[in-house]
Amino acid sequence: MLNFTVGPVMSSEAVRKIGGEQTPYFRNDEFSKIMFENEELMKEFLFASDDSRVVFITGSGTAAMEATVMNVFNEEDKVLIVNGGGFGQRFVDLCNIHNIPNDEIKLDFGQDITQEILDSYNDKGYTGFLVNICETSSCVYYNLDLISNFCSKNNIFLVVDAISSFLANPLNMVEQNIDVVITGSQKALACPPGISVIALGQNALKRIESNSCNSLYFDLKNMLRNGERGQTPFTPAVTILLQINQRLKEIKEQGGVNSEIERISNLANDFRNRIQKLPLEIKCTCLGNSVTGVYCINSSAIVIVDALKKEYGIWVNPNGGEIGNKMFRVGHIGNLTIEDNDKLIEAFQDLEKRGILK
Amino acid sequence: MLNFTVGPVMSSEAVRKIGGEQTPYFRNDEFSKIMFENEELMKEFLFASDDSRVVFITGSGTAAMEATVMNVFNEEDKVLIVNGGGFGQRFVDLCNIHNIPNDEIKLDFGQDITQEILDSYNDKGYTGFLVNICETSSCVYYNLDLISNFCSKNNIFLVVDAISSFLANPLNMVEQNIDVVITGSQKALACPPGISVIALGQNALKRIESNSCNSLYFDLKNMLRNGERGQTPFTPAVTILLQINQRLKEIKEQGGVNSEIERISNLANDFRNRIQKLPLEIKCTCLGNSVTGVYCINSSAIVIVDALKKEYGIWVNPNGGEIGNKMFRVGHIGNLTIEDNDKLIEAFQDLEKRGILK
Repeated sequence: MLNFTVGPVMSSEAVRKIGGEQTPYFRNDEFSKIMFENEELMKEFLFASDDSRVVFITGSGTAAMEATVMNVFNEEDKVLIVNGGGFGQRFVDLCNIHNIPNDEIKLDFGQDITQEILDSYNDKGYTGFLVNICETSSCVYYNLDLISNFCSKNNIFLVVDAISSFLANPLNMVEQNIDVVITGSQKALACPPGISVIALGQNALKRIESNSCNSLYFDLKNMLRNGERGQTPFTPAVTILLQINQRLKEIKEQGGVNSEIERISNLANDFRNRIQKLPLEIKCTCLGNSVTGVYCINSSAIVIVDALKKEYGIWVNPNGGEIGNKMFRVGHIGNLTIEDNDKLIEAFQDLEKRGILK
Repeated sequence: MLNFTVGPVMSSEAVRKIGGEQTPYFRNDEFSKIMFENEELMKEFLFASDDSRVVFITGSGTAAMEATVMNVFNEEDKVLIVNGGGFGQRFVDLCNIHNIPNDEIKLDFGQDITQEILDSYNDKGYTGFLVNICETSSCVYYNLDLISNFCSKNNIFLVVDAISSFLANPLNMVEQNIDVVITGSQKALACPPGISVIALGQNALKRIESNSCNSLYFDLKNMLRNGERGQTPFTPAVTILLQINQRLKEIKEQGGVNSEIERISNLANDFRNRIQKLPLEIKCTCLGNSVTGVYCINSSAIVIVDALKKEYGIWVNPNGGEIGNKMFRVGHIGNLTIEDNDKLIEAFQDLEKRGILK
């Protein structure tokens, strides 16, 4: 199958090879060395400060979101959450579960944040800001510079969930004053799912140190302490961490994070240009590079997704809920090439010829 | 490397092959079918009642321990915890973090539970019992029948962490009145680490339904609801779940859970018989089949572990803390054979000949 979903995505041959090997014993210096390399390369690719730290949690992206909310905030905070879809709502739910006072910036499905919206929240005593920078449910990529400026001006602690956008869109922790970045193994890192990653700047580390965490598994203090010797408190998904190591080194060898962003951006632009001649529509004007929301003009998105899978061996990402019959999503992350785009476009053209896509 | 650690352990060729393939898209019927099969086979191998349920958490065994404590108990419970090592202490820590009133049955390192000890806790109003049935730090396998009878007699809800003993020692949820069993992917399930498993009987399901859980990621109600359609609330470690499916089917084809227990038991007995002629000692009189604690008589355990690794390409499991220089552990789970035992014994014999093992 050719996989254009937003994750899990396709992995390189070298990454897959590691998945096919025996899992090594990990409570030793060899594995610690891998973990130190992973931490350093993540910091490099996130343009994090030297004194930043990175932890790797065995769990989904939501595990990292929950660990972040539990460890960097407490009941004395007042956080602002961009809620324009399923993942924004998840941050709201997490804050409510953990008694973090919060307000939502409610946005319509597909709507970007604006200066005007942000200005209305100036000087209101907010201490934290949570945003899923690519709201993967709607494919919106929020304007990170606007958010970053707003937070800097108001001295607000900024948490960016970049789960589906890390390596696909530019992000600079130091220049953009980002305190926490969250990502996951199965997006542009292009490894199997099972590991989520949290990068923590100095302010985040200070908050964690002075906070208490009502969980053993999600206790970032404990993870950071174990990380000092390149280890984790509990048995991690060792194989996936080895695969992440391989992948981070591949990116480095192929020119680093900017080359990878350019590569993904080229794939996204190529796809977006080429579907203009098809009865498909891109409505969102603020897309990132990871994923394109595609609307069907006169056909059912469910039928198209199903036909691509069963008749052409291609997975694209269906949408849940009511929008699912109108829109599907095409990812541009993972081990994809322009030739793969050719195959997808040819499948659409064939579906049009057959009167299924109209 | 030949891996005799207690996990991650060696996987079969078919399990590894899946690890080397692309991760498939999972929000579809094909993956749900796999998950339903996993649940059914787990229930079969645990001799669970038909109305039991099984959930798969992306996380280490500790994640499943924490989710269990948070979902089946609350502040009105009074639980008794067998604490004879690092993993018993972990249950104590988890109960303290989540405000579950608890008392410990403190046992010495390597000591089994007895009828006498248990009798002293009769009629004391306990509502829950937590035990790591194989305390993997000391290699003790606690007497499950004694514990089961004690809990039945006192009408106590019984949670068995069988992380390292599932498939290695007999366990029958119905006959032994076990309400919850916890296990993990990287022990006798012989898959890479990253998935932990919780099997829940009817009493456990009732407790979860009437309880509230202060976590999104660990909310078992949410997992159970999603599991009804063969799915998980958040992106799981898909590859490992496919590998678990392969492995469960392999066990079934090879004669089922009892055959697998017999196979592991034979490996353990073979090893234990053959080290009698070596300057090594087994002190524990209540071992299970998963792992053997081995004491060095006149040599340093650290030196032996290191020599096995560097000079013979064999991993055995070092112990942490003060005991680490006296004792190491040899696992019998994973894709091991009698021929692998030969290699380990030959390495010991060679170390003895060279005057290193004495």
